[in-house]
Amino acid sequence: MPCVRSTTGVPRLITVRVGVLTGGGDCPGLNAVIRALVRKAERVYGDEIVGFLDAWDGVLNRRTVALNVESMRGTLPRGGTVLGTRRGSPFDYDDGVEQVRSTLADMGLDGLVVIGGNGSLSVAHLLHSEHDIPVLGVPKTIDNDIVGTDLTFGFNTAVQIATDAIDRLHTTAESHDRVLVVEVMGRHSGWIATHAGIAGGATVVLIPERPFDIDAVCQRLVRRHSRGRYASIVVVAEGAVPAEGTLDISDPEIDRYGHARLGGVGHLVAAEIGRRTGFETRPVLLGHVQRGGTPTAFDRVLSTRFGVSAIDAVHDGAWGQMVALSGADIVTVPLATAAGQSRPVDMDLFHGVAEIFFA
Amino acid sequence: MPCVRSTTGVPRLITVRVGVLTGGGDCPGLNAVIRALVRKAERVYGDEIVGFLDAWDGVLNRRTVALNVESMRGTLPRGGTVLGTRRGSPFDYDDGVEQVRSTLADMGLDGLVVIGGNGSLSVAHLLHSEHDIPVLGVPKTIDNDIVGTDLTFGFNTAVQIATDAIDRLHTTAESHDRVLVVEVMGRHSGWIATHAGIAGGATVVLIPERPFDIDAVCQRLVRRHSRGRYASIVVVAEGAVPAEGTLDISDPEIDRYGHARLGGVGHLVAAEIGRRTGFETRPVLLGHVQRGGTPTAFDRVLSTRFGVSAIDAVHDGAWGQMVALSGADIVTVPLATAAGQSRPVDMDLFHGVAEIFFA
Amino acid sequence: MPCVRSTTGVPRLITVRVGVLTGGGDCPGLNAVIRALVRKAERVYGDEIVGFLDAWDGVLNRRTVALNVESMRGTLPRGGTVLGTRRGSPFDYDDGVEQVRSTLADMGLDGLVVIGGNGSLSVAHLLHSEHDIPVLGVPKTIDNDIVGTDLTFGFNTAVQIATDAIDRLHTTAESHDRVLVVEVMGRHSGWIATHAGIAGGATVVLIPERPFDIDAVCQRLVRRHSRGRYASIVVVAEGAVPAEGTLDISDPEIDRYGHARLGGVGHLVAAEIGRRTGFETRPVLLGHVQRGGTPTAFDRVLSTRFGVSAIDAVHDGAWGQMVALSGADIVTVPLATAAGQSRPVDMDLFHGVAEIFFA
Amino acid sequence: MPCVRSTTGVPRLITVRVGVLTGGGDCPGLNAVIRALVRKAERVYGDEIVGFLDAWDGVLNRRTVALNVESMRGTLPRGGTVLGTRRGSPFDYDDGVEQVRSTLADMGLDGLVVIGGNGSLSVAHLLHSEHDIPVLGVPKTIDNDIVGTDLTFGFNTAVQIATDAIDRLHTTAESHDRVLVVEVMGRHSGWIATHAGIAGGATVVLIPERPFDIDAVCQRLVRRHSRGRYASIVVVAEGAVPAEGTLDISDPEIDRYGHARLGGVGHLVAAEIGRRTGFETRPVLLGHVQRGGTPTAFDRVLSTRFGVSAIDAVHDGAWGQMVALSGADIVTVPLATAAGQSRPVDMDLFHGVAEIFFA
Repeated sequence: MPCVRSTTGVPRLITVRVGVLTGGGDCPGLNAVIRALVRKAERVYGDEIVGFLDAWDGVLNRRTVALNVESMRGTLPRGGTVLGTRRGSPFDYDDGVEQVRSTLADMGLDGLVVIGGNGSLSVAHLLHSEHDIPVLGVPKTIDNDIVGTDLTFGFNTAVQIATDAIDRLHTTAESHDRVLVVEVMGRHSGWIATHAGIAGGATVVLIPERPFDIDAVCQRLVRRHSRGRYASIVVVAEGAVPAEGTLDISDPEIDRYGHARLGGVGHLVAAEIGRRTGFETRPVLLGHVQRGGTPTAFDRVLSTRFGVSAIDAVHDGAWGQMVALSGADIVTVPLATAAGQSRPVDMDLFHGVAEIFFA
Repeated sequence: MPCVRSTTGVPRLITVRVGVLTGGGDCPGLNAVIRALVRKAERVYGDEIVGFLDAWDGVLNRRTVALNVESMRGTLPRGGTVLGTRRGSPFDYDDGVEQVRSTLADMGLDGLVVIGGNGSLSVAHLLHSEHDIPVLGVPKTIDNDIVGTDLTFGFNTAVQIATDAIDRLHTTAESHDRVLVVEVMGRHSGWIATHAGIAGGATVVLIPERPFDIDAVCQRLVRRHSRGRYASIVVVAEGAVPAEGTLDISDPEIDRYGHARLGGVGHLVAAEIGRRTGFETRPVLLGHVQRGGTPTAFDRVLSTRFGVSAIDAVHDGAWGQMVALSGADIVTVPLATAAGQSRPVDMDLFHGVAEIFFA
Repeated sequence: MPCVRSTTGVPRLITVRVGVLTGGGDCPGLNAVIRALVRKAERVYGDEIVGFLDAWDGVLNRRTVALNVESMRGTLPRGGTVLGTRRGSPFDYDDGVEQVRSTLADMGLDGLVVIGGNGSLSVAHLLHSEHDIPVLGVPKTIDNDIVGTDLTFGFNTAVQIATDAIDRLHTTAESHDRVLVVEVMGRHSGWIATHAGIAGGATVVLIPERPFDIDAVCQRLVRRHSRGRYASIVVVAEGAVPAEGTLDISDPEIDRYGHARLGGVGHLVAAEIGRRTGFETRPVLLGHVQRGGTPTAFDRVLSTRFGVSAIDAVHDGAWGQMVALSGADIVTVPLATAAGQSRPVDMDLFHGVAEIFFA
Repeated sequence: MPCVRSTTGVPRLITVRVGVLTGGGDCPGLNAVIRALVRKAERVYGDEIVGFLDAWDGVLNRRTVALNVESMRGTLPRGGTVLGTRRGSPFDYDDGVEQVRSTLADMGLDGLVVIGGNGSLSVAHLLHSEHDIPVLGVPKTIDNDIVGTDLTFGFNTAVQIATDAIDRLHTTAESHDRVLVVEVMGRHSGWIATHAGIAGGATVVLIPERPFDIDAVCQRLVRRHSRGRYASIVVVAEGAVPAEGTLDISDPEIDRYGHARLGGVGHLVAAEIGRRTGFETRPVLLGHVQRGGTPTAFDRVLSTRFGVSAIDAVHDGAWGQMVALSGADIVTVPLATAAGQSRPVDMDLFHGVAEIFFA
């Protein structure tokens, strides 16, 4: 059961010394989390915060940087992470866990704050639950698919960027029978695709949670275009897959286009729609544009609240937990909640709201 | 107690005929609400939707426009309202209520959806509770100060616009001792100021909920600047007021500058900071820029969900209620909840999170 | 020799009746040209302006719309074209030219203003020079590759959109050895790639005017990355091609990736860089996002000036000419200047300015 | 007569050592100039570049920073100036000129590049012409009012920001009789006001070059509104002034509102329009928002070209000159051209193009 974390209350003034790392891919808001954590730590608690460089690599090889209010100045609007990030985890090495333990001990650290996605949070969970290492999580992903939190920071920014792109594509609405296929991020979930699809007024949205039937997609487009002079916008999550039996990629006729899948599912979908409908169809691949650059105001506020609550949670000794958004509140939930899971898009939203529009 | 409104479920397929109006000031997302309501009404329920022009004036003088999927095409990203808006309410006229009743009866309307702010929702509440007129509310304000809903659409857009402006002002951070005062909207509440202040990394945020002491503000700025070469950004909600006894506007010395208040409280604050600290101080007044133009993706999704849920609520016969956001859900709450109220900013957020940063 | 066109001077007040069409692809600023032309025509000259729908199709099939100040209201910031556009030219039909002539005669039109790219301007040139049909051109292309004008509208917008995307990609600069490949428009010229590359701080820019050597590109990236922890951004114009003998696509090893070219040259380049350097390499394909949506302020001013000057030129009887930007002035130049040509990027800019940065 | 400066050609490889300073107010593109100058200096010429902090203060007090490719990394998109800026000039001190001379001599500098506006360029001109100090100028102002160059960097950004704001204000176009008054920068010239007015579709544009008659403005607004349901947008340059005899500020009736001028001429205009027409009229003051933040792509390219050409000009020994844009070329012109001048807006543009729209 989540514990509501007051952001006021009497400060718990035992000074601590903690490490922070950022794991996984870029995500707008990472610096805002670190900055907020550091500011509250330094100004309210008098803590010392050590930044580990390049995720777990910094912990294993003791590559660190001191973090303070001054060094974090100006980072609030910046994308990326001042700490860097890299693949890999302590479990890749025989003595990885012991190295983490000894790094914390030798550096006099009371614990470690891990800002990361499903992978990093799973590692954090294992380190705490199996090896009793004091770790606190901060959930991070533009995909919004972490179990245990209503929203993750970075998601709002990614949706806004995708929506801005879709807005620009609508201009062609006066043209005849043009189809624009926008591939957005979302390997395991359709959150970005669904929200950007609603916000951008897309015609079709294809998500990993619901394998698509390319014939049905084409029929919908043909039916719509038969009613007038339209362009259609198809939003495809990178993890969208054809329903079984609907698109035989070993069929040479499709294979010819299917190689386009090296350009991603968006290219495959664009090629197939063009081939089957005869409509002029063009792909757009936003790629990393969605995960870079300055966070939206929304993501900055959420990141800031996460950062503040993370250092509060450290002072509460909430190891093995992660901060999370629940309604309007920031709470803590066990890392076990998130570990090894992926949260599918709200299908009520997708079906009930979205399908009226994606037609 | 709020009733969670499923966005799926079995459609309630009794066809209705309802009117819609938009009251109060512009707010990004108004067209998105109408568009969503109309799309679900037409496509799922087969309803007829009549738009009343210029708020209550359209009801009283039967100035209407038919709304349908086709006529609403392209309006999702547009600011403003296709229905227009105007001051005034049925209660301004002796027979106003009876005119509303007879308009509904003569036009064969089952009820009226009122998309509006505190004022319009209060009128809607009275019409329903005192005069038994079937009215449903959709809360609307960029100020986010309506009781009964976690968020209102338009707010996210306003905060983003203010934050973008603050971002640009930070550039002068390399300059010496410059203070920039940004007046943002919020006559009764500091929601926009607080969120934009957090997201923009402001130094001081002044809100209606907490009368300000100009001396304390100046001391904070002087203290900060004494530590290095900074610019400071002061965010002032238009409804911010000096604490009693802190700024005697009848004092001729202040009066000289105080006339600047004709330019708004932001100008007064800028003039006083400049006079008292000697720092070069400049005002920025964003004004209506905050309430116009295309809504953010977030506001489009929220507006769309409100519009869909509003027509669902109509089919549920939820007259006297308004749709609202509660956590991740769209619910309905009695109009009485919102009527005549203003929701102050979350002071936990302001104090607990914000004060660490506004320093 | 260009004739400087005064935008003031005594209005030439013989009223005319002219048709307008927009040919070729979307381009931000098309509506701004039409709006300006119509406003000056109606308000200063008292002209009548007839819009032909869907380019030459509207002329051939007499599908028209009356254009006036009122009907053009609100179109200044809108992308696309209110007139629509479509492929095809009068020369596709045996009697096409005669149909154009008779449409103009039957509708009492004094001439035709053709807003279009290289293709449309060539058609316009032929109609005038070979068939004596009174046509005036307005050059239009986001690619900026029309001979005879310093700049075309739409180009500034396309460069800004590409630059915004590149800015967001820079965020990953803290990451190790990541390469992001952005394919931008420019089938025949590298204007967009070069300007966006300079403005975005790209590492490598590949343009049609200079076939690329993938080995040299990879060496440059490896050398740069060997100096520190960098990300690199490679901008590729869609018309960029490998230098002869540098990338044998029939080589099965390359072919395996080469199929990625179905996703465009950007995908090919990304695949090859990844394969040859081992750096994590990801493509971005902005596609039609670059040619849709609201024009920048710069493009709106240029479009407006083109529109105003076009109707002035009509009153001057400058048939067979097109309006053009020359330094700070709007002039007219013969359509023959532009017809059948493509203007390569300024190689002084590319070499002299750009190469210092693309390294 | 301007000398066209080739950006290619044989590099002039005598290594130099020069100082750089930025004078006057913030201007988007300053860092891009410095970065380009430094990159070409270091990579092509092998020069050493010394940055003086806080304009002339850094020269007088020898506060410097070494500038190189590495230290300038990441600054291309940043507003402000990494060198800082401050008021004051060597001529404020008896021995100021001699201090400049001895700083250059003692630090072994071959000369000084001054990036600045009318004030800084005038100082630079005097230092060179009267005191034979080797100085090269780079013109800088968001106001675009420097004589000798077709355009200055920063202007495009300022116009874009003002246009974005105006776009958002148009939303209220469905509302009745609302007037929005936007005050933009331009103390001596109406460049920003005119371009933003054209790009934003303003109704009235008031500029310093043409004193305004408030009665004529109000009549135009009333006439326009009498034709339908409009909002109007009035753009006012901060340096706009009432024509003699048109607005007697000593008149107590006007004085009552006139005090609003403490909020700038925009407030005065808004107050008077509201008073005289009865239309709901609201001011917007963009202030420093226009001069901060990231430069547009256009300004980044122009700044980069200026920076590259400045170091080329240094190697040409073009002391006493400044770089400038002439048509599509970067040239050098004598500092005397710019010194003590202000370039008024192109009245051909204002009258010939703009007046058709501002109505």
